[in-house]
Amino acid sequence: MQGTRGSVAKLGTREKILEAGLKVIHAHGFNGCSIEDITEVAGVPKGSFYNHFDSKEAFAAEVLGIYEGVGDWVSSLDTNKAPLARLRDYFKGASFAFKAAGFKRGCLMGNLASELSDSSELVRKVLVRRFARWHRAIADVLREAQSKGEVSENIDADQTARFLVNSWEGALIQMKVSRSNQPIDDFLKMAFASLKPLDHPGPKTR
Amino acid sequence: MQGTRGSVAKLGTREKILEAGLKVIHAHGFNGCSIEDITEVAGVPKGSFYNHFDSKEAFAAEVLGIYEGVGDWVSSLDTNKAPLARLRDYFKGASFAFKAAGFKRGCLMGNLASELSDSSELVRKVLVRRFARWHRAIADVLREAQSKGEVSENIDADQTARFLVNSWEGALIQMKVSRSNQPIDDFLKMAFASLKPLDHPGPKTR
Repeated sequence: MQGTRGSVAKLGTREKILEAGLKVIHAHGFNGCSIEDITEVAGVPKGSFYNHFDSKEAFAAEVLGIYEGVGDWVSSLDTNKAPLARLRDYFKGASFAFKAAGFKRGCLMGNLASELSDSSELVRKVLVRRFARWHRAIADVLREAQSKGEVSENIDADQTARFLVNSWEGALIQMKVSRSNQPIDDFLKMAFASLKPLDHPGPKTR
Repeated sequence: MQGTRGSVAKLGTREKILEAGLKVIHAHGFNGCSIEDITEVAGVPKGSFYNHFDSKEAFAAEVLGIYEGVGDWVSSLDTNKAPLARLRDYFKGASFAFKAAGFKRGCLMGNLASELSDSSELVRKVLVRRFARWHRAIADVLREAQSKGEVSENIDADQTARFLVNSWEGALIQMKVSRSNQPIDDFLKMAFASLKPLDHPGPKTR
């Protein structure tokens, strides 16, 4: 019984530290916070950190794993909606959360990509996988839009998906600088205008 | 004479620290390096830092001031070249420097925007000004392109300039993650394809 209770308690501590780490790293950056900052928010002793994580770097990689980024929402969208409108609403929906946060923090994936890609191979590799999953999810919606004549068949869905995600991440950085929704508005207008088919003004009827 | 020699020497130290700071902060981020890391690269005593700068934050704001970002190149471009080709070559030219750096570091402005916008009002305000200058320079080239019929007159040159710069910054983040030129290639293809006028296939002759 002692052993069971002990491991349950350990699981709780580990999860508490991860949840606190997500908040603290998202707000202050990886190098902008200490392990003590994280364990303090988690309400656990500082020493317990290394019972659960090998290093701060390994911890950041795990935090990225529990971050429910906007990329995870794609597959949960209402497929009754036309693909392009669905995609637009998806980015627009994410922007409400950023507005509510006073245009601060931005995307944890983008932030850690900027801060740690050069210094942590571990974090960089997690980011490669997570961004790839996101790109694939967007590309799938774009292919659906192409099959319905909403998006030109001349565009490369995978390349467009990568461009959309990258432009979105860039918009979020400028959102933090300008403390305004303007970069997101610019993204929504410009990125989606470029997807319209040149030769097919309306949806195909096939 | 002593006073003059003293102030010349001081200027030298200050510049050495700024140049070293630019390199070290660009490579490791603001919170990823210490003042000692910077003075060590500068080859000056650690204590001399605070003779020249009030704080690490004020120092970062000054470093941004000496960073010759790609934004500063716009006005030095060959105006004999057609505006859109000039703009494309400008981003492409910047990409060679990134490639030479092994796709690391990226843009100091984007990096500090991501890392410090929430925590330093001083740095954020410097970034607001520098990005605005960059946006204006790009918008001017776009307006020139519009006047020559290279870019649709239906687009908002200022909004397009902001979108281009933001998408570029997002591409640079993904460049660091993927350690490849692909995000820049995606940007060059997708962002510029969207600028082509829909109703004017060739340049105007007016």
